[in-house]
Amino acid sequence: MTDGTDGYPTALGAADRTRITLLGQDLAEDIMGSVGFGELAFWLAAQRRPTPGETRVFEAVLAALADHGFTPTAIVTRLTYLSAPDSIQGALAAGLLGGGSRFLGVTEDTGAFLHAVLAARDDPPADEAGWDALALETVRARREAGQFVPGLGHHLHKDGDPRTPRLMRIATEEGLFGPHLSLFAAIGRVHPRVLGRTLPLNGAGVCGAALADLGLPLALLRGFALLARTAGLIGQLAEEMRSPVARDIFLAVDSHNRPVPPQPDTNGGSHG
Amino acid sequence: MTDGTDGYPTALGAADRTRITLLGQDLAEDIMGSVGFGELAFWLAAQRRPTPGETRVFEAVLAALADHGFTPTAIVTRLTYLSAPDSIQGALAAGLLGGGSRFLGVTEDTGAFLHAVLAARDDPPADEAGWDALALETVRARREAGQFVPGLGHHLHKDGDPRTPRLMRIATEEGLFGPHLSLFAAIGRVHPRVLGRTLPLNGAGVCGAALADLGLPLALLRGFALLARTAGLIGQLAEEMRSPVARDIFLAVDSHNRPVPPQPDTNGGSHG
Amino acid sequence: MTDGTDGYPTALGAADRTRITLLGQDLAEDIMGSVGFGELAFWLAAQRRPTPGETRVFEAVLAALADHGFTPTAIVTRLTYLSAPDSIQGALAAGLLGGGSRFLGVTEDTGAFLHAVLAARDDPPADEAGWDALALETVRARREAGQFVPGLGHHLHKDGDPRTPRLMRIATEEGLFGPHLSLFAAIGRVHPRVLGRTLPLNGAGVCGAALADLGLPLALLRGFALLARTAGLIGQLAEEMRSPVARDIFLAVDSHNRPVPPQPDTNGGSHG
Amino acid sequence: MTDGTDGYPTALGAADRTRITLLGQDLAEDIMGSVGFGELAFWLAAQRRPTPGETRVFEAVLAALADHGFTPTAIVTRLTYLSAPDSIQGALAAGLLGGGSRFLGVTEDTGAFLHAVLAARDDPPADEAGWDALALETVRARREAGQFVPGLGHHLHKDGDPRTPRLMRIATEEGLFGPHLSLFAAIGRVHPRVLGRTLPLNGAGVCGAALADLGLPLALLRGFALLARTAGLIGQLAEEMRSPVARDIFLAVDSHNRPVPPQPDTNGGSHG
Repeated sequence: MTDGTDGYPTALGAADRTRITLLGQDLAEDIMGSVGFGELAFWLAAQRRPTPGETRVFEAVLAALADHGFTPTAIVTRLTYLSAPDSIQGALAAGLLGGGSRFLGVTEDTGAFLHAVLAARDDPPADEAGWDALALETVRARREAGQFVPGLGHHLHKDGDPRTPRLMRIATEEGLFGPHLSLFAAIGRVHPRVLGRTLPLNGAGVCGAALADLGLPLALLRGFALLARTAGLIGQLAEEMRSPVARDIFLAVDSHNRPVPPQPDTNGGSHG
Repeated sequence: MTDGTDGYPTALGAADRTRITLLGQDLAEDIMGSVGFGELAFWLAAQRRPTPGETRVFEAVLAALADHGFTPTAIVTRLTYLSAPDSIQGALAAGLLGGGSRFLGVTEDTGAFLHAVLAARDDPPADEAGWDALALETVRARREAGQFVPGLGHHLHKDGDPRTPRLMRIATEEGLFGPHLSLFAAIGRVHPRVLGRTLPLNGAGVCGAALADLGLPLALLRGFALLARTAGLIGQLAEEMRSPVARDIFLAVDSHNRPVPPQPDTNGGSHG
Repeated sequence: MTDGTDGYPTALGAADRTRITLLGQDLAEDIMGSVGFGELAFWLAAQRRPTPGETRVFEAVLAALADHGFTPTAIVTRLTYLSAPDSIQGALAAGLLGGGSRFLGVTEDTGAFLHAVLAARDDPPADEAGWDALALETVRARREAGQFVPGLGHHLHKDGDPRTPRLMRIATEEGLFGPHLSLFAAIGRVHPRVLGRTLPLNGAGVCGAALADLGLPLALLRGFALLARTAGLIGQLAEEMRSPVARDIFLAVDSHNRPVPPQPDTNGGSHG
Repeated sequence: MTDGTDGYPTALGAADRTRITLLGQDLAEDIMGSVGFGELAFWLAAQRRPTPGETRVFEAVLAALADHGFTPTAIVTRLTYLSAPDSIQGALAAGLLGGGSRFLGVTEDTGAFLHAVLAARDDPPADEAGWDALALETVRARREAGQFVPGLGHHLHKDGDPRTPRLMRIATEEGLFGPHLSLFAAIGRVHPRVLGRTLPLNGAGVCGAALADLGLPLALLRGFALLARTAGLIGQLAEEMRSPVARDIFLAVDSHNRPVPPQPDTNGGSHG
């Protein structure tokens, strides 16, 4: 299709002279005023309208991931606004670019990891003992392969991340505690037997498990973390406009600048 | 404050070993499961919790701006995903970077324009006749200055943008039809007397008026359009993953590539 | 042209099965190995090959703007790499997004300002006295309008920015000290008579004057600053890979986090 | 170092009241006017000054990668400029965000692949027969693992990419035809014996081999492709300003918009 004859199919926004549709609905009459923003974001990504329970779990995930204070992404958005105050879109985009494998990736990694374990089996376990057995086998396999278990551990909440039990409770209330959350919870119960110490199931990980149980596209789990973070970064910008700190941050860094002689990069160092 | 002694004050996310707070609330117990995503985004930006009516108007605005089909921003996100499928954050950020003065700027421009007119007066008009008089004066002043009236006109919805009456009705239902919407509506009524033809009040403009009536920071109106668009771009990415068109778009453009000789840029041309 | 029948004309890269052209040249035979990178960048932007003297001035400008240590853009690139080490393109793009009106804008503003003054006259002055008269008139007009003179002043190099006399000397050596540099130099001589104190002509400003004298598109002056900065940001990334500091910067900021109660944003504050 | 006591060491830009240094040099006196832009970019990345021969090879690589016409990155930059003409930095950043694993990744992948093969041996082969034997073993191992050989094949230049022999010739002329290029050339000679057909060594791949032979950091090879592309994208912007096509591209895509009903995303489809 290099000449456009078949067109570019889409079920998203479309408009003619008198009407705008979105997802096959009349935007003005059927969506505006009736569909919440979290609900709409789910609908856009899944091309099906979520139930109220699904929306509640989804919005709880977005709340869990929206803002964590002076993270690198927040600092980046504030510094970019300081440098280029004319471009709000640039400040937000710069902050989102930190949402990669390390800081926002846990959600995606955990969802994909749990899904892969489940996809390799015919049926999910029938009871808690079955989940524990599967979890034990899974944690052992990771350990033997020298790999971390995604979603396990937190640098600060060493005794437990408060978001984890809360999200599990919400999913239970809504009848949406599915196989991904079941396996994740079981990992939380059994991992000390393999690792010899107790680590918390972290909030980013439980969000990945919950999103996977909602049937959302795994390849987009990072996208939902970024959507949540967009709201958080707007909050950071609003606060920066009211009580600016970016200039102080910049000056504090710059004042600790310590000039040293160049250190040639040799093959050995970088190519190892 | 270059040595950090006073610290960087923030009312956004904070955490200690057992507890996470956001906006002074307990994130797990008081926000997750109780606060919708639109509501939270408003709260983060305004640092005050919106009423249910404010949330409904705000989410109607976000719905109105979320996706308009194959806009430049949507095409950009799809093409960037084609080029760099490993970086969802890059594809979203690239799309948002198109949210500048031209395509997403009308919301911001309209809000700021209406606010400036209102700020130059002591009191708002008392009745519809008063609003019409102010609108007439305003449109005349723009015309005499050779300037457009922001929010007026639409390339497609020439007989009326369906989002405009719908958002005004929602704001009325919620008791949030304030001075910005009042002035915008009056401009819709009186401008034909000055311009000699009837133009529609467009959806992006009415969104700006409604956001200004909600008391949200004017400097961030573009930010809310970008938040809405983030959800839309995730929808575009989800659809691109299911039924890709970016490669066809790229090949269609490339196949119409028409090599011509270089045309030197001279001072005259670009410096005029 | 909505159906592509006329094609999209371009004088940039094109290729067929056996040959690649760029700017009408044979890329492999006539450009690779013969055309330096600064020369090529000029050629791409101006669609004419620069002379060796033009290339020398252009590359001196790029050197002047490449890196200034721990600027916001450099910090942003390092923090983004910390967060998303898998996406070098994201780290560079995030850094460039700080290249807006404030930090990298002086080059563009100065070039455009000088050009506007010159464009309003029929002929340039004939001698130094003439330039001084024009500069005096220009500085007075800015002062009366309550506006700064772009390119004048520096927060650190209060007694003179060393890049300014150096770039002027290079332009003189190459016979490229044109009207923009002449006016800029005259502003440097006469402004104390109007402002009552002596400010340095800064490096970013003299770069804008020199680029304008090279006949490069004024609307792209910021683009050349960004090109220079791309090289600088790659240097920052290389250094961050060898001896990382981004994590320390992040932790230093985060440790000075000082939670405060939310401060509602009211219309008054932000809408003024 | 969370309190900045040791400072943030850097060998890049630094300044005091009268002097600016870069890489330990006096920026104004020793770099401006003396160091070309390609040379400076190399120096910044490697923290050592390249020889003239190294600069020539490096700049030939940058020329080879600067612009390939209407690539996705070029289209993205033009469309973003159309949407947000006030933000040149946004248009460039958006284009660079397409520089990920697929379109600009071949350079990086090839350099890293060749280096890994060489690093697994004690000494490089002594003669062409030795290189051919190593290449044969390498191509066979990739084939048996079901993996492509990076840098081999091109969708258009099926009979040979003209950049490849040219860059090899330049490297030979400068005495910089090292082990990475030697292995790459040998792969070009022997692969038909394994794959049963002759594929071209592509330009992006040979650039990766040449950059690795220059001893540049492997983790930054994508960064050099992005630097080259920044110059190309400035060329695209300059051309878009002179003879715009982005609006036609957007309208051509939008006019082929074909609304279809939503297609729910189910676990099966996306989670496979």
